[in-house]
Amino acid sequence: MRITTVGLDADDTLWHNETIFRLTQARLRAMLADFAPAEAFDTTLAAVERRNLRLYGYGVKGFTLSMIETAMELTGNAPPGPLIADILAAGREMLGHPVEPLPGVEQALAELVDYRLVLITKGDLLHQEQKLAASGLGDLFAAVEIVSEKDASTYERVFARHGTGAAEAVMAGNSLRSDVLPALDAGAYAAHIPYEITWAHELADTPENHPRFAELPSISALPGWVRSLS
Amino acid sequence: MRITTVGLDADDTLWHNETIFRLTQARLRAMLADFAPAEAFDTTLAAVERRNLRLYGYGVKGFTLSMIETAMELTGNAPPGPLIADILAAGREMLGHPVEPLPGVEQALAELVDYRLVLITKGDLLHQEQKLAASGLGDLFAAVEIVSEKDASTYERVFARHGTGAAEAVMAGNSLRSDVLPALDAGAYAAHIPYEITWAHELADTPENHPRFAELPSISALPGWVRSLS
Repeated sequence: MRITTVGLDADDTLWHNETIFRLTQARLRAMLADFAPAEAFDTTLAAVERRNLRLYGYGVKGFTLSMIETAMELTGNAPPGPLIADILAAGREMLGHPVEPLPGVEQALAELVDYRLVLITKGDLLHQEQKLAASGLGDLFAAVEIVSEKDASTYERVFARHGTGAAEAVMAGNSLRSDVLPALDAGAYAAHIPYEITWAHELADTPENHPRFAELPSISALPGWVRSLS
Repeated sequence: MRITTVGLDADDTLWHNETIFRLTQARLRAMLADFAPAEAFDTTLAAVERRNLRLYGYGVKGFTLSMIETAMELTGNAPPGPLIADILAAGREMLGHPVEPLPGVEQALAELVDYRLVLITKGDLLHQEQKLAASGLGDLFAAVEIVSEKDASTYERVFARHGTGAAEAVMAGNSLRSDVLPALDAGAYAAHIPYEITWAHELADTPENHPRFAELPSISALPGWVRSLS
């Protein structure tokens, strides 16, 4: 068995992301406390996001639009004073948020230097490029693929283009639904590296006894696992 | 001289785009007529868009956010009733707008069958993929590159990856600023195919007496020009 290529997810694998979404959501929940109890707010926002996903895809801009839509719904089209402007500002703040690699990321990527590293991520094209640049990790990757959806055909295509095919590739990330299951379907190896929280949309069951799957406690365990496959 | 690859812009080259933005802008202008004269509205929206371009990039989602920001500014944070919800709906309508190839596009692409065709476009990743799928033109392209910015290094990279380098490539599109000038800088040939209107941000001067440039009356003239270069 030969592994030539390691694909890495970005958000919540290399740097914080979901935490920033949830902090922003908590701010809006507080702003709307006079209009909706916390639970009703969370349910409405989740429903609006789900409804818009097909049109907006993933990323901060779509999330900001869904927050505004939620505010309009919950205030009966009468948002108080600067509420909508505050949501716009919160969205811009998310886009300008500083990016720092999660603990262990730089060390792990350095130990994977013998493999072709490919960043594979969803989200807003421009914002993901900006985050990679701000992270200082850009030079470690042989290729970057920002995709609209992560399914088996995505991994087949990316590992064929930038590596030697999925059978000789590992995919690692925090989402079972987006990083692990479709990569396994494509014939690649896959490591799940959980993040502290997971967006409901990304939840899925852990594969059981799959010969090409590993659950890792942190990204620090990734280089050892990749080497063990060869 | 050998030409192997033809790059094509998408919005306003293969299908209508700017018209849809301007129609939506006209609708918002009318909705805000009680708050701002037409000219003040247009000036404010243009300033908001310019200010946000660095964070939002190109595309409908950023435009929708900028329309909302403009409405908040012009109404003094007191948007009447469903105005913001109406803007959100207008944005969703733009994302779901049907896509039809402009006159002559299908014929021109068919006549370019001997060249490797590469679609090179800015905008929202998911939306551009959806428009290409809806246009029915997807199968004609050997590759699709959705990029956050079109500069000389973009064209160098794309024509190296999908062709035989910029020196053996033609780029064609409606924007002098994004499709023509940076492609010429990269060493490619470039054809300007004007669309009925141009977004102010995309305006630039026409190159004079440039040996690798052509101004074409419509996309129907592209295959003949490309063949004339060989």
